[in-house]
Amino acid sequence: MPSKFDTRALDLGVLALRAAYAAGTQTPEAVINAVYDRIDRSPDPAVWIALTPRAEALARARAVPLDAPLAGIPFAVKDNLDAEGLETTAGCPVYRYRPERGAFVVDRLLEAGAILVGKTNLDQFATGLVGTRSPYGAPRCVFDERYISGGSSSGSAVAVAAGLVSFALGTDTAGSGRVPAAFNNIVGLKPTRGLLSTAGVVPACRSLDCVSIFSLTCADGDAVRRVVEGFDPADPWSRPARSRPLPLEAPAVGVLAPADRDFCGDAATAALYEDAVARAEGLGWTIREIDCGPFREAARLLYAGPWVAERAAAVGGFIAAHRADCDPTVAGIILDGPAPSAVDAFQGIYALKAHERACAAVWTTVDALLLPTAPTQYTVEAVKTDPVALNATLGLYTNFVNLLDLAAVAVPAGFTPGGLAFGVTLIAPAFTDAALAVLGDRLHRALGLGAGRDRVPVPALVVQDAPDLVDLAVVGAHLSGMPLNHQLTDRGAVLVETTRTARDYRLYALAGTVPPKPGLVRDPGFIGPGILAEVWRMTQAAFGAFVEEVPPPLAIGTMDLADGRRVKGFVCEPAAIAGGEDITDRGGWRQYLTGV
Amino acid sequence: MPSKFDTRALDLGVLALRAAYAAGTQTPEAVINAVYDRIDRSPDPAVWIALTPRAEALARARAVPLDAPLAGIPFAVKDNLDAEGLETTAGCPVYRYRPERGAFVVDRLLEAGAILVGKTNLDQFATGLVGTRSPYGAPRCVFDERYISGGSSSGSAVAVAAGLVSFALGTDTAGSGRVPAAFNNIVGLKPTRGLLSTAGVVPACRSLDCVSIFSLTCADGDAVRRVVEGFDPADPWSRPARSRPLPLEAPAVGVLAPADRDFCGDAATAALYEDAVARAEGLGWTIREIDCGPFREAARLLYAGPWVAERAAAVGGFIAAHRADCDPTVAGIILDGPAPSAVDAFQGIYALKAHERACAAVWTTVDALLLPTAPTQYTVEAVKTDPVALNATLGLYTNFVNLLDLAAVAVPAGFTPGGLAFGVTLIAPAFTDAALAVLGDRLHRALGLGAGRDRVPVPALVVQDAPDLVDLAVVGAHLSGMPLNHQLTDRGAVLVETTRTARDYRLYALAGTVPPKPGLVRDPGFIGPGILAEVWRMTQAAFGAFVEEVPPPLAIGTMDLADGRRVKGFVCEPAAIAGGEDITDRGGWRQYLTGV
Repeated sequence: MPSKFDTRALDLGVLALRAAYAAGTQTPEAVINAVYDRIDRSPDPAVWIALTPRAEALARARAVPLDAPLAGIPFAVKDNLDAEGLETTAGCPVYRYRPERGAFVVDRLLEAGAILVGKTNLDQFATGLVGTRSPYGAPRCVFDERYISGGSSSGSAVAVAAGLVSFALGTDTAGSGRVPAAFNNIVGLKPTRGLLSTAGVVPACRSLDCVSIFSLTCADGDAVRRVVEGFDPADPWSRPARSRPLPLEAPAVGVLAPADRDFCGDAATAALYEDAVARAEGLGWTIREIDCGPFREAARLLYAGPWVAERAAAVGGFIAAHRADCDPTVAGIILDGPAPSAVDAFQGIYALKAHERACAAVWTTVDALLLPTAPTQYTVEAVKTDPVALNATLGLYTNFVNLLDLAAVAVPAGFTPGGLAFGVTLIAPAFTDAALAVLGDRLHRALGLGAGRDRVPVPALVVQDAPDLVDLAVVGAHLSGMPLNHQLTDRGAVLVETTRTARDYRLYALAGTVPPKPGLVRDPGFIGPGILAEVWRMTQAAFGAFVEEVPPPLAIGTMDLADGRRVKGFVCEPAAIAGGEDITDRGGWRQYLTGV
Repeated sequence: MPSKFDTRALDLGVLALRAAYAAGTQTPEAVINAVYDRIDRSPDPAVWIALTPRAEALARARAVPLDAPLAGIPFAVKDNLDAEGLETTAGCPVYRYRPERGAFVVDRLLEAGAILVGKTNLDQFATGLVGTRSPYGAPRCVFDERYISGGSSSGSAVAVAAGLVSFALGTDTAGSGRVPAAFNNIVGLKPTRGLLSTAGVVPACRSLDCVSIFSLTCADGDAVRRVVEGFDPADPWSRPARSRPLPLEAPAVGVLAPADRDFCGDAATAALYEDAVARAEGLGWTIREIDCGPFREAARLLYAGPWVAERAAAVGGFIAAHRADCDPTVAGIILDGPAPSAVDAFQGIYALKAHERACAAVWTTVDALLLPTAPTQYTVEAVKTDPVALNATLGLYTNFVNLLDLAAVAVPAGFTPGGLAFGVTLIAPAFTDAALAVLGDRLHRALGLGAGRDRVPVPALVVQDAPDLVDLAVVGAHLSGMPLNHQLTDRGAVLVETTRTARDYRLYALAGTVPPKPGLVRDPGFIGPGILAEVWRMTQAAFGAFVEEVPPPLAIGTMDLADGRRVKGFVCEPAAIAGGEDITDRGGWRQYLTGV
């Protein structure tokens, strides 16, 4: 039965579908049918390991309550995550098992109304960045089938890039959630370690593994992250979600110094990285060349250090017992390297601690790093001839991220003259996930080339409030450039907006304050100009420390802004207004001080 | 030349000496002379490995500025901490080296005016809880020379207990800063991991090592901790100091269930533990029997798991090359056990993570644990016949503490009929150090038996403000038992005091608030009764979250208390008082609501 909805040019973006459902121009059932039609016509047989039967997905689509946050959004999951009703293989047919329950994150998505379409191919046991280490075949780059898709989350990335699903879950230990995003012109969110539960995930390196999100846009990925993040007591590595702000308007980003720009001889990607840096500068971001030494040293630990033993701890016994049925490259990496001792393990941990301390110096100078996601891209043929060394080069700019407890978002960064996609990654300390998505979105949209194989338009991410960050409006000596502004900046607060208070506020120059301070007082019924205010965003801890320092007669209460929003703001004890000069008509403290 | 100051009955307590110096009844020079006289007469030759020459210490004592925080306070350090001018041996003569600079913590003490008297004996390479594993002899329990002093910080504990120094630094990986405190009737502070820099410390298990503090009283130890704590960029394990509050008046403490009370057959110590629990109950503390399973499982990992490889990483190569010159028991432990692999190391880390999660359930029910410090005490002779197994039993209640990132304070808990000292330890999550010292002080003083060999009187610890905790006075719906009190308790805030505001405040019942709320307004010149207020203490993050929730017209400003102190408190926007009823004469919101 033909659908009454036109799905030929269907944009599967999460926000686009949500809007279409809300407008009634699409239904989940029509979309799921379209998705399965696309999969049937899809030229790459290596993307999927298992599909949910179409009838089952359609039944779910018909039953889903449309007010659920991801109602009717089709998604895929990498086949090292458990999903109820489907076997898990981790890319290894003899390893397959039928899980008793789904992974925490998969169940969260299903509860939110998303429709699971299937399980995707991967480098076996998530060991690889190439996407060729699988008996289920090698998914191909959506732009050139001679080229690798990147891995290990190969099928998930291609499924999103080819428009087969709205988003897909991957995993990311060494870069598996970022490298294939770069090669296929999509976004790869690599959340903070522990932010997304790994319960129900076949481990690679248990202390480092992250569930990752592929999507067409940062806005889509961010919306998915908000659904799946959250503390899971069943995962010992789970951490409660919290937020750390980054300056959104003018961040300082660290880039590679010219001597560190290693693209494995690929002049095209080198040029695209320069373009990305210029684009960031064009957004008003401050560009700083960094010492990437300690990051590279940390990166080397992942395969040259003891962490490969985590892979052996996870699946070494199985592989040893079934070696003939496993990918030879994967088996070789996990079983045939030197077997490090516990002494080596602790010495690796010590080395990492030292590198982490050295990196801390870099973080005092930049808010985020802007690095290539991968230096270059290889053909499937090339990887077959040199499967380990070429794979290793792909992790040059990704391997350190989880070891150093950083968050990252990989975004598209243009195309080579040969038509291959290049990507860059923004990287910042743990719990900056929401802020990174905002920055990633701006950088992606500045490129103007869309997302995925079909270069789907990229709608803007709407910056959301973080429930655990505080917005504080300041109107006096804490304004930018004023004597007490450092009480905000010293605590990591970031300016998010310059605006005005509601019109029923009066501003007084208080008598006898040092430095001179104004007092803001609401006068119900009064209609004035509104007072110039800056909104600063900070953590609750920073806010608590700030409030503690506020001297009487000032206090922190609630302020109404000109547009009707309420934020925290300065108020003044009643007794203190006496003797103050009403300066409301100046429109703000800055104007009063400068006499403008 | 005889001193004009009487030092025969000199109390070397840190606070006692400070007071004597301030009063002019003692001088640093006289005290240092007295200390060296005592050392000369001291019967135990095994306490010291090296002494600062008397003339040098006296020169320092004469030069020290008396306004320095620890001016003229004599101290000792365990000989696995570096001190400029003295060799470090770690209890192994062939290992000795002359450090280029002192350990961070030792230098902090010297900068604070403390006088280093010497380096103390230890179980070689801090490997042991007995104090007998040293070529420099076995320091003896100050109450019975047939008995071990406990270790590994044996000499430091005995030096304090015998009145040879005011305090001493030890180290604590498995319990070395606590077990010898118990056996010698003194206090052992085991700070949060990373709070005291380990730069300049010979490592035992680098990921777990803590510098610890021996003192006669919790007040003394806490005063020393405040001087030596602080972030050290040179130590990759260093963490910035911060505070986490515990309820000080009525904490809930977890104790061993009867079935878990293992005292290795020692009925005397079993009875003393029961006494300690009863004493805690007598202080108004809530006693809860806990499931100590996950703590014991974590404890077993320290020697049965891979962490012994950290000792091998630190000194294994040296011991292998100089085995004939090393303590045979220590060499055996570090070299002869099964050599765990990196896979074992990571599996140990996974097991610890799981135990940590299981322990979290216990922490939702209690504020602190109250456990025996050691189950029993052995003679030197007994330990010689069975050096490994008896040592292991001593760590039964201490081994898990650093693995699980907890803070601890070991305090005296009475004497057996045979005259041996017993101790208990209060244990709580990281960064509760200051609060634990307060609780430890109360438990110690409730015993009433003094400290050290000479049972020196124990002056009370004066509770200090924590610079990073916030005291907030509440006067309305946030009072204990009122509808919004949970906004404080849910965030871990603890009640520290019930008091009144200054007398120039008026209280209004605000019109139309739900739940009913008062507004507090300062009326300069007004003299009223002062308003009933409770002071709650919380972290800056908890305070920030609390302030964020305060609805208009209320705000958080500064409140003057009846005794002149200033804390944060509720204030009210001027416009909101209109229409409110002045209820100042009721003296408080509770009285207004109840009509009393």
